[in-house]
Amino acid sequence: MPKIRKILIANRGEIAIRVMRTCKELGIATVAVYSEADRSALHVRMADQAYFVGPPPSRESYLVQERILEAAKQSGADAIHPGYGFLSENASFVRACEKAGITFIGPPASAMDAMGEKTRARQNMIKAGVPVVPGSTEPIATQEEARAYAEKIGFPVMLKAAGGGGGKGMRKVEQGAEFDSAWRSAKSEALNAFGNDAVYIEKYLEKPHHVEIQVFADQHGTTVHLGERECSAQRRHQKVVEETPSPILTPELRAQMGEVAVKAAKAVNYVGAGTVEFLVDAHRNFYFLEMNTRLQVEHPVTEWVTGLDLVALQIKVAEGEKLPFTDTVPPRGHAIEVRIYAEDPARNFMPSPGKIQYLRVPGGPSVRDDSGVFAGYTVPNFYDPMISKLSVWAPTRAEAIARAQRALSEYVVKGITTNTRYLKAILAHPEFTGGDYDTSFLTREHTALLGGEDPKLQEVALLASAVFAHQRDQKRAKALPQQAGPGTGGVSAWRLGLRTR
Amino acid sequence: MPKIRKILIANRGEIAIRVMRTCKELGIATVAVYSEADRSALHVRMADQAYFVGPPPSRESYLVQERILEAAKQSGADAIHPGYGFLSENASFVRACEKAGITFIGPPASAMDAMGEKTRARQNMIKAGVPVVPGSTEPIATQEEARAYAEKIGFPVMLKAAGGGGGKGMRKVEQGAEFDSAWRSAKSEALNAFGNDAVYIEKYLEKPHHVEIQVFADQHGTTVHLGERECSAQRRHQKVVEETPSPILTPELRAQMGEVAVKAAKAVNYVGAGTVEFLVDAHRNFYFLEMNTRLQVEHPVTEWVTGLDLVALQIKVAEGEKLPFTDTVPPRGHAIEVRIYAEDPARNFMPSPGKIQYLRVPGGPSVRDDSGVFAGYTVPNFYDPMISKLSVWAPTRAEAIARAQRALSEYVVKGITTNTRYLKAILAHPEFTGGDYDTSFLTREHTALLGGEDPKLQEVALLASAVFAHQRDQKRAKALPQQAGPGTGGVSAWRLGLRTR
Repeated sequence: MPKIRKILIANRGEIAIRVMRTCKELGIATVAVYSEADRSALHVRMADQAYFVGPPPSRESYLVQERILEAAKQSGADAIHPGYGFLSENASFVRACEKAGITFIGPPASAMDAMGEKTRARQNMIKAGVPVVPGSTEPIATQEEARAYAEKIGFPVMLKAAGGGGGKGMRKVEQGAEFDSAWRSAKSEALNAFGNDAVYIEKYLEKPHHVEIQVFADQHGTTVHLGERECSAQRRHQKVVEETPSPILTPELRAQMGEVAVKAAKAVNYVGAGTVEFLVDAHRNFYFLEMNTRLQVEHPVTEWVTGLDLVALQIKVAEGEKLPFTDTVPPRGHAIEVRIYAEDPARNFMPSPGKIQYLRVPGGPSVRDDSGVFAGYTVPNFYDPMISKLSVWAPTRAEAIARAQRALSEYVVKGITTNTRYLKAILAHPEFTGGDYDTSFLTREHTALLGGEDPKLQEVALLASAVFAHQRDQKRAKALPQQAGPGTGGVSAWRLGLRTR
Repeated sequence: MPKIRKILIANRGEIAIRVMRTCKELGIATVAVYSEADRSALHVRMADQAYFVGPPPSRESYLVQERILEAAKQSGADAIHPGYGFLSENASFVRACEKAGITFIGPPASAMDAMGEKTRARQNMIKAGVPVVPGSTEPIATQEEARAYAEKIGFPVMLKAAGGGGGKGMRKVEQGAEFDSAWRSAKSEALNAFGNDAVYIEKYLEKPHHVEIQVFADQHGTTVHLGERECSAQRRHQKVVEETPSPILTPELRAQMGEVAVKAAKAVNYVGAGTVEFLVDAHRNFYFLEMNTRLQVEHPVTEWVTGLDLVALQIKVAEGEKLPFTDTVPPRGHAIEVRIYAEDPARNFMPSPGKIQYLRVPGGPSVRDDSGVFAGYTVPNFYDPMISKLSVWAPTRAEAIARAQRALSEYVVKGITTNTRYLKAILAHPEFTGGDYDTSFLTREHTALLGGEDPKLQEVALLASAVFAHQRDQKRAKALPQQAGPGTGGVSAWRLGLRTR
């Protein structure tokens, strides 16, 4: 296969820039596409050429296959990199690229097909001997059958849409009485989100960890894994902080999961970069969740510890080169990524689009900024509000956390609200620093995380808890026969400058 | 020795910020000092406390030992980090710190004494069995003696100031007839620069490489080297681009030089971070040049390949901890640093102070920005005009060069002129990419490097060389009996759109 000379990046924001950076280093020309809302975006400025593909929202521009292909043809691009999201896991687009004689930098359509529909993926994995979360392997036809199935495997259960992920059409059902309404709402949400109301049932795992394995395969039969990423810090099924190595994995478990991930990839004749996501329960059993057949948002942490450029590897594999290794690459040190969003945690994480008046990004040792924005740029309100991924490396996890905190403290952005304070609170939380945080962490600690970082809020929280302690002591004192004298317990609300009712 | 809780950083600019970053990660409070010209500098903003120490120039502020010590006492700092330059190699300041009960983060005064005066350092090294550049081991008293000595070792020779380095009081003498005037000007320059007109003589090495070894020693007798840095890309004895590993070192030579550097450090009972500089000749013989008893500007490349934080190690060694290794740390991959200056290469590298109207620093994989500036900051004209150090890492040298080029192409600064285009030209020059560039490289290729990067300038250079070739061919044609007909050689100036006279 000939060398790729020009790549169209069918994406926007930080990931488009990320791909262009590698292209530039490899001497490959770049073509951007952009919507009406992205005329002045950084990815357009950084590309060698740029093509307009329509107005927002994405279904009228970035998702229109014909326009993307037309831009590729007009620009003379010989390959398309899809980034993540948009057309990156769309098998019909892969086939259209093939038909147009343009290299799609990603797995073959058949591998996407095998992993795209969730119940089919489960069947394929069971066939390949990969452990999956216990549950149905096919969409369940009727409500009655479904409830009977749930009762058989035992509550709590998860209802899941077969047609797609991202939390849509997903319902946790605690007990039989809730089942019927949850079933109806999951089906209707699935229909709205994916045009497909098929729903299946999984056993609900208590407090699982989300641990995913990076796999890479070339066209010559070599498939390896490149270690794991711990992604349990999630809010509404969206990852917020990712790290590698996972603090809960032993070398044995890592090797086992890596082996299973490679088996999963081989079962669908995978080629390129992919991620096999697992849930790991409290007993460290692990279960296949799904496979993402593309580059992940959080790939920089893997790059930090392996020293590899995953985008460069994707391109080389697409050119038909052999992988430069035949076994996993031993990681060095520890890496953490935090996702910086233009959003206001204090206002229920409402997106905060607008003009960035001032921007100063962190620097110094082992800090990486993958940003899609610049000072003077207006963050549009049509797309995902992630403006930057900040990642750090250090020899140990504790040092990496300290470095991430330091880097976040250097981040200055004016004009829009961001979640940097929330991120600092996550990194400072004892459950995070302790290393054993599961996917319920951010939801469970929601209030603490929102108040925990601002010193003023902390002060208020301290006062409040002192007041509660005082009230509790007063109640106890009343309940007990002997009256507690002054100084025997609690904190005087008066001394704290607060009055209790 | 107790843990250090608060450090005063007796420096400014990027190195002050570099030190503060590590302090922040270690949970150590920071104290800045600043001159009148640095009131709004970034290092002042980033510190926990800041003390005013006087007006520019540095001898009235950053170099005034009493003011620095007073600020340390007032702030309650228990240690001082000197950075590089300023008081970093001043043994009397080290003694003043000791007397004041403040930990100086650096070697003991005795080690500085042993290495500070150049002829004494040469004597110490010869005693320790370290090869030095052939020449005198003492300042030479009279002009007559000096000329006789030069004739004995053979021209060309270098005259060098004994009192200090940095190119001051340094003269190359090609032959006897030039000797007397060179001697006089070297002495007078040395007197002006160091208050000491002592000059000694070294054999001039033809086209040497400047290769330096990073050494580290703790207070418990462990001394190791951490590999080398190739610093031969120098302009007027100032390093411009640095890299590690050195492309000219074999594993054997690296091990030998490392061993000799450790021997040099042990000979003076060194403690902390130091750098032993060597010249390496065409036959790969190496000679001790000098030892810098402090952190080097170019330390980030060593941090990239070893994964160590040299500032954190300095602090831990100062606290009395043992080094966490007892042998050299094997490097991984390749790192390159370029020094970004506020200067105009086209106007003889004249400093270009002024207000930075806009700044966008490079990001993405394995790019590090150590900067002392920000958008809106006015670069003062009192200090070294280096505004940032850009360093990159990659698995191989070729990839590191490509990454450095890519990163430089992302660097946007408006309002002042910088040398980024010059740096790109260096990285693109075949002598640099070939890897065997000596200390004469930048001077020898001066014109090519100034014109080499701008495509328009390249075009002009191409035209000009074609015209010269044409003229040369015409001259030859005239000189030869037979007349050269059209199309027999050269390039038509007319076709190139230029007219020859």
